[in-house]
Formats: sequence, structure tokens, C-alpha cells
Amino acid sequence: MTERTKFLLDESKMPGAWYNINADMPVAPAPVLHPGTLEPVTPDFLAVLFPMSLILQEISTERYIEIPEPVRDVYKLWRPTPFVRARRLELALDTPAHIYFKYEGASPVGSHKPNTAVPQAFFNKQEGTKALTTETGAGQWGSALAMACNFFGMDLEVYMVKESFYQKPYRRIMIESYGATIYPSPSTNTQYGRSLLAGNPDAPGSLGIAISEAVEAAATSGGAKKYSLGSVLNHVLLHQTVIGQEALLQFEMADEYPDVIIGCAGGGSNFAGFTFPFIHKNLTEDKATRVIAAEPAASPSLTKGVYTFDYGDTAQMAPIVKMHTLGHTFIPPGIHAGGLRYHGMSPQVSALVDGGYVEARAVKQLDTFRAALTFLRAEGIIPAPESTHAIKVAIDEALAARESGEKRVIAFNLSGHGHFDMVAYEDYLHGRLEDYEYPAEAVEEALQHLPSVG
Amino acid sequence: MTERTKFLLDESKMPGAWYNINADMPVAPAPVLHPGTLEPVTPDFLAVLFPMSLILQEISTERYIEIPEPVRDVYKLWRPTPFVRARRLELALDTPAHIYFKYEGASPVGSHKPNTAVPQAFFNKQEGTKALTTETGAGQWGSALAMACNFFGMDLEVYMVKESFYQKPYRRIMIESYGATIYPSPSTNTQYGRSLLAGNPDAPGSLGIAISEAVEAAATSGGAKKYSLGSVLNHVLLHQTVIGQEALLQFEMADEYPDVIIGCAGGGSNFAGFTFPFIHKNLTEDKATRVIAAEPAASPSLTKGVYTFDYGDTAQMAPIVKMHTLGHTFIPPGIHAGGLRYHGMSPQVSALVDGGYVEARAVKQLDTFRAALTFLRAEGIIPAPESTHAIKVAIDEALAARESGEKRVIAFNLSGHGHFDMVAYEDYLHGRLEDYEYPAEAVEEALQHLPSVG
Repeated sequence: MTERTKFLLDESKMPGAWYNINADMPVAPAPVLHPGTLEPVTPDFLAVLFPMSLILQEISTERYIEIPEPVRDVYKLWRPTPFVRARRLELALDTPAHIYFKYEGASPVGSHKPNTAVPQAFFNKQEGTKALTTETGAGQWGSALAMACNFFGMDLEVYMVKESFYQKPYRRIMIESYGATIYPSPSTNTQYGRSLLAGNPDAPGSLGIAISEAVEAAATSGGAKKYSLGSVLNHVLLHQTVIGQEALLQFEMADEYPDVIIGCAGGGSNFAGFTFPFIHKNLTEDKATRVIAAEPAASPSLTKGVYTFDYGDTAQMAPIVKMHTLGHTFIPPGIHAGGLRYHGMSPQVSALVDGGYVEARAVKQLDTFRAALTFLRAEGIIPAPESTHAIKVAIDEALAARESGEKRVIAFNLSGHGHFDMVAYEDYLHGRLEDYEYPAEAVEEALQHLPSVG
Repeated sequence: MTERTKFLLDESKMPGAWYNINADMPVAPAPVLHPGTLEPVTPDFLAVLFPMSLILQEISTERYIEIPEPVRDVYKLWRPTPFVRARRLELALDTPAHIYFKYEGASPVGSHKPNTAVPQAFFNKQEGTKALTTETGAGQWGSALAMACNFFGMDLEVYMVKESFYQKPYRRIMIESYGATIYPSPSTNTQYGRSLLAGNPDAPGSLGIAISEAVEAAATSGGAKKYSLGSVLNHVLLHQTVIGQEALLQFEMADEYPDVIIGCAGGGSNFAGFTFPFIHKNLTEDKATRVIAAEPAASPSLTKGVYTFDYGDTAQMAPIVKMHTLGHTFIPPGIHAGGLRYHGMSPQVSALVDGGYVEARAVKQLDTFRAALTFLRAEGIIPAPESTHAIKVAIDEALAARESGEKRVIAFNLSGHGHFDMVAYEDYLHGRLEDYEYPAEAVEEALQHLPSVG
């Protein structure tokens, strides 16, 4: 093994612009609807929550949107991220496939989330926003936005699901270390939170509730505070495309091009960030890379959901979008991959799956941890539970290549490290990890509550 | 801020050999003594615990020792590590100084420890060792050696201080994830452990006890198991010199050379690994870089200890070496920088401090966390509590440069990230962190028990 392992890109090669898939979408995007009126939203409605520059990115059809210099300056703290040929994994699998991964766990908070947290903080600051509000489940998004707001001297209010706040304190402390203020949700800060606590002072909270509190806190601030979301929306996906653009350059260094690329998909942002620049090549050049979205069998919006209009959140306060959904009232089982526990999916990713441009595959929790062990014992890095979904599919593809005896170039996005998720590994190692079945009945019930859109 | 931030080295530029400071030591090393006879040890005595190749490295005076290809192949998974110009920290401090750091937290386990764990596992495997034994406090060393043994298909027995085993489970789980077996120490595996448990079934353990158990487990295995140590010894320091050698090349890329370099020092291995290649230039070329060892005021062997012969461990089973020591019976206060809680110091580092080639500076716990907050809010990375000691000294040097108005090039080794140490940050943020005074009386008492060496 004397051949090259890592493909490092100098910071001068960092992308100068984000890639906007709206410019190349084979189908026109469905309108975004107001959650109250069910009519198409106006920019005014969105402007209560978001600064105008992000709203314009949300609806832009420009192919490339320039990355401002102050954002690039922060990206440089850890970007470009490493691109690695997983030679030891190939050996362990005895496969002729070449396996590569892009390592987003190299960021200071250990995930891809800062790629959008930093520009969101920047554009808000530029338009005079004094503070941001957001929700966080286990804390990956909250810690990324806390770091970003700190860099631009902005305040941040984080609503963290109460159960995680007390049971998974490490990321909460990280959020506080960067100077943000954090509340267990439901909290007494918002009317919605107080109403829930009045009914049940011990309410454990949920991501849907935390979103509603963060939205309310921004919407009722008289313009001082805006709201920030870590996935699903187009401007978020857009910011993440630095991942795939770097990977394209790193594939050139490796003198290869992928046959298959894989990302895990919860709301869709790390998946989109890694794959959209390759999908661009599929759509506009003579490339035919297979693109696979790996989702949890316990929360399989792409493989079992309906492609239709639904609310983005549980409390019906977020806009209605056309997407693959399991129903906004569906609460996914408690898999460790908290970032993949979402009832819906990015509209862009949904449309691409619907059009056959992206394959979707659902994988079970135990299989993902089995794959994670194979990976970490070969390559050293302990992956985040979300990323294990992409690893599982990558390993399956490598084993299929062994079966068929073909060389196949496979790449996946390792969206984060698992240093904050060791309890999940302990459960797996000691046989305590549950393997949730697809919750068919709960989904069927939730799908009864879709909004009645023409 | 459009100038360069990171200096990345291609893996083809990774050092081909370790640098051995024994070749350049201005004073001859003192003999290593047998803990029982107090006479110089023979290789036979050491051969019970270590493979011959490591014993030869321990006493070698060759300036460069080649890094075997299989070790380089593993290093390549994360090496060369990033070298970063801390421009945002410079701005935050409003200093004319240029501040650089080498980032060893980029390894899969988040610290510099694998630099020696990997070759130790390799050389043992090469000589037919079936399994290794070791001790670990909070788990940094244990997780590095677990990863390394896994890569070379070797078994590993880790004795982890019982209190940490139960209270700091994350690194314990990491060790298990890599396939090692881990026991809370004192354990029932060893005679020493059983004797302690007979006296007190709830004994919380200590690093000294865990060392003694790991040594006993190897020594009584009939040659099947060897023992592995993560710091202090020359072969360990040697393996760490990849850090400083890379940094020299990265300084060339930056077209600068350091006026001051800093590492934190517990047993001395990350300090030596970073600084020895620069000390080599000081000793053999016309360089005059100031070299500073940053140690905790609560366990200040270099600034308050005696330079004399002492046991390496509490139980008097390890060899006696000449070093700066606070007395082998001294138990350092419970600072969060567990890796710096050691009564002694590497003999090589001690001799260089004694000879005036290295400055030593003791810093207090609260000051190190204050420095850590300044650093992480400027650069994003959350440092390990050990590394904060180097940061504190680097910031002091940068502020001194501001005072005097001089440009000063400062570099420090960021030996690890703090993602497993968030509880320490919580204590600091909430005003619960203690600032231990120098425990003068305890040291005075411990210094009564030095071995009576002629």
C-alpha cells in the first residue's frame, strides 16, 4: 500500500461560488404555500423569519452564487476538507471497488453543519439582524450555528429538545462555550412553550416543538431576531455544495470519476451538498453517476412516504412544500441518528427522487452500526450515526462489485464524526441496540392529516 | 484577511524517519536503574516488558531512525496534520505577533497519541507479541493504542482507572469499539489488584495502580504479552517527532521561522515531539528559537520539582530514571488536564530544562480555560484541557509582543481536541472550576521517599 491515501486541496482551490441546482432542475419547483391560507407565500411572509438575501437565494435560478469573502475566510479554518481513498476498507471487504469518502467531520464542531451556519450568520449580520433563534435536537446544528454567530458577533437563542438537553449535555456545553444562550424546550420563553408546560410541566419536548418555539421567538421579536434552519430549504442545500465541488476537484487529483455516490438523507442538506455538483454533471454533461440517498428504515420518507404537499413542522407554523413526507404528525422512532429523524425531505431532493435522477435506499439501524464497526476498524475514524447510513450503502455497493468482479468507483460523504455519540456505540457493542421496523401504522395514521391542497 | 490560513503538506512529504535527540544531547544521559537493585538495568530486564526493537530505540544514539512502511501507511490516514496560522486569534489579541499551531487533534482519536501507539503495536507484532497491556487515565492513550492494535490485528488489555471507567465512559466505549478489552482498575486480574480490592472493594484506583496492574499482567504472561507506555520513555518521544518535522516543513511553506515554540508537558511526549526537531536546529545550526514547556501549577515537576533519580511509578515497579520529579508518591490534584497529572517528566526533557535549553512555565487551571475560551471563540476548535496550557503561554507571549511592539513568530502544539472534555468546560463556564494552589506540603512529603541512589 504505497499509493496515495488522501487528496488534500489547498485553500486557494476552495470554491468561489455555491452551486444552485434550481438552475438545472429538470422539473419546475412547486410553489411554497402559506401554512394558514394554503396559498403561495409572498417574500413578505418569509421576511419575518429570514433576511432578504437568503430569501433571494431560496428562489434564485442563478447557477452559481458567489461566496462572500468573510464567509470564505471562516471556511478556511477547516476547508477544503480531506478526501480519502479508503484503501484499508477496500482490503477488509476484498473488493475490486475503489472507495472514497469526503470527510466533513474535520470541521471544528465535527460535522458539515457549519457550511451553512456561517453564511446564514453572515447574511443576517449584513442586514442588521441582532440575534438568531434556532432549534436543535441532539445539538449538531445548534453547535454549528453557535460557532458561526460567535464569529460574526451575533447573539443566538437555541431551543434544545428538553430530553437531549439533560441527557446529552456535551453538545449543549459546546453551544454555551461559543457564547450562545440555550433553553430546554418546551420553555417559558414562548407562548407555545408556556401553553405546553401548563398542560404538562414535565413534557420531554420534540424537534417539532422546538422549531415552533424558535419560530415564535423570531416572529414576535419585532424584527430584532431572525430564525435559522439547518436543512431542507434551498439556501441551506446551496451552501453545502462546497462539499461536492471540492470532491470533484479531488477526484481529478485522484484521476478517477465516481460510478456511484452516496449520502445519508434526513432533511437532505449533506446529501445535496455532496451530490448536487455531480448531478449537475449528470444533467449537463455526458456523465452517468448513480446517486443514492441513504435513509433510515425507521423514518423512510423517500422510500415509503408520499410525494405531496405537507407542512414542514409538527405545529403547522412552517410553510407547506411539495416533498416526500410521512405526514407532519409522524414522530419517528428513537434511532440514534437523530439528524435523520424527520417526517419530510428537501423539495429539491424529493423532486430528483421522483424524477428518477436519485435512487433512495432505506437501511436498518443494526446494519448501519455493523457497517460503522467495519469502517472504523479499517479507517480509524468513528462515524456519526447519521453517516453510518451512507457507509452501509457504500459497503453494499463494494460487495456487489466483488460479486460481479467489476471495478467500481464509489464515494460517500462522511458527514460527521461520532465522538458525541459513543453511547450509541456502547448500546450496539453490548447488544442493546434496537432494530426498529418500519412503523407502517403510524405513518398511515399521520398521512390522514395532510393539508388539503388543491 | 485574504492571506493564507492553513499550510497543508502532501502525504509524500511525511517524514521518512524519526528524529532521535539522543544523538544531539548536550549532556550524556544518566543510566536507567533497576527499581529493586538500584543498579543500571540490563536489556534483559526491559525485555520482559518491551520488544527488542523498542529497547534498541530507547538507547540508540542514531540521529534518525527510519519509519517502517506499514507505520507510514497508517500515519497517512491522518498525517501530515494541519499547520494553521491563527489569524483570528491574532486579531482578537490585537498583537503584531504571528501565531501558528500544529493540530494533532486531527487524528481519528483526537490527539497526538497514535503517533507512538502505531509504531509500538507494529514493532511488537513484528517480534511475535500476541497482546499488549497498558493503563489509561481518562482514556486518551488507551483509545490510541486500541486503534493501533486493531490495525495490526493484536489483542489489547487496558487497565482504566476505576473512577474514570464509570464517570467518563465515552473514551472507554471508544476503546471497546476498536476491539480492545478494558478493565476497571484495581481489577481482579492481577495479584496487585486483588490485594487492593481485598483491603477496599470500592477503591477508586489511580494511574499509578493501573500502571502496576498493566506491568504485572505483561510480566507474568510468560512472554505472550508485552507492556506499552504512552509517554516519558525515549522511544515514545522519538515517535512523536513526526509532529515537529512536519511543522518545520510547514514553516518553510509559510516562509517564516519561529522565535518561540510551546508545548504542554505532562510526561513530555507531545512537547518533545513538537519541539525536538527545532531544538536540533538550535543545537546544530545557528537557530535560537526559545522553547517553552507549559505545565500545570498543580503538578509542576519542571518548575518546582527536584532533578534527581526517582521511580517512574507509584508502586516502584518501573525503572528509576533521572528526571524532574515531585516524588513518586505525590498524587497531583484533580485538574481536568488528566494527561498532565504526573509526578515526573521525561529524562530527555528534564535534562534539557536543567541545561537551560528549554524554559519551563507553570500555569493555573482557571487561566488555561480563560485562554481556551479566547482561542475557541477565535479559531473554532475546542482544545483539550492539556493543550490549553500551551495556548495560555502562547497568548502570554503574543501579549508580550504587543507590549513591546515587536513582531514575534509564536507556534504551539494543539495536542488534542476537547470533545471528550466538555464537562470541564461546563465547570468553567458555570464558575465551578477550582484553581488549585501549588501543593507545597504534599510535594515536600513525597520528596522524602526518593530512592537512595548513590
